[in-house]
Amino acid sequence: MQRIANLLAIQDGKALLLQKPRRGWYVAPGGKMESGESIFEAAVREFQEETNTTPKNVHLKGVYTMVIKREQEIINEWMLYTFVAHGIEGVPYEETKEGLLGWFDIDQLHHLPMAEGDRTNLLFVASQQGIQYGTFEYTEQFELLSETIQNSQE
Amino acid sequence: MQRIANLLAIQDGKALLLQKPRRGWYVAPGGKMESGESIFEAAVREFQEETNTTPKNVHLKGVYTMVIKREQEIINEWMLYTFVAHGIEGVPYEETKEGLLGWFDIDQLHHLPMAEGDRTNLLFVASQQGIQYGTFEYTEQFELLSETIQNSQE
Repeated sequence: MQRIANLLAIQDGKALLLQKPRRGWYVAPGGKMESGESIFEAAVREFQEETNTTPKNVHLKGVYTMVIKREQEIINEWMLYTFVAHGIEGVPYEETKEGLLGWFDIDQLHHLPMAEGDRTNLLFVASQQGIQYGTFEYTEQFELLSETIQNSQE
Repeated sequence: MQRIANLLAIQDGKALLLQKPRRGWYVAPGGKMESGESIFEAAVREFQEETNTTPKNVHLKGVYTMVIKREQEIINEWMLYTFVAHGIEGVPYEETKEGLLGWFDIDQLHHLPMAEGDRTNLLFVASQQGIQYGTFEYTEQFELLSETIQNSQE
């Protein structure tokens, strides 16, 4: 089962987002965990590779079960771990083979084109306390079928 | 890849532990996630099934990459999600097919027989703020080869 770690860096009230070329959708930089890595190590490594910067004050904000359904059948399932960072060291790439990087006001997370589950996830990361858990069910075309969310705080 | 969720319930300064019959080692109640479940749902369901009680104030405390090595080769890898609960509703089973349940002083986590990575994990859960991440490498006989730990707080 695939494990994906991503990280939303926030600095001066803005979030660093990556616009992927395929659909033009925005995501938090991240990627696949490697064998033996912790989720924390994976999130930091992937962010560094994709942005050329180092995230500061890294903390886990969301753990999601991601499901792709065809009719009633689950045809793919993976885990998504989403971290926040408050501040980065360095100046991010503007363009990489992964897409275009840019800073966006937190409010724009409500409107920018993205997977609808990612919107739930990133809005929580950027503006709420605690940890969010949940399951997102998508079609193969990445239309959100359902989301089931839980939250907790220490 | 297997995903395991477990939960350490703390009440009146004591932790509810399950003693497994095979080695006599102590663990926090838990088990395998089901397809489409969130980690939160899995931890609560497994705890309810194994103890006959409902955990209160459930919160994620640790996410671990678990690795079994033979020589230098990784022969198994899975994810462990460890939650805390402060208080439970109901009276736990004393004995189940999974083993013996009982309340133990937090201090006893230093000495009770258990996998050494579980000791790191459960001591953190019971006595520290924030979230712990890491990788535990074990032999096939469950001797700890290495642990690499990170922590963060909101």
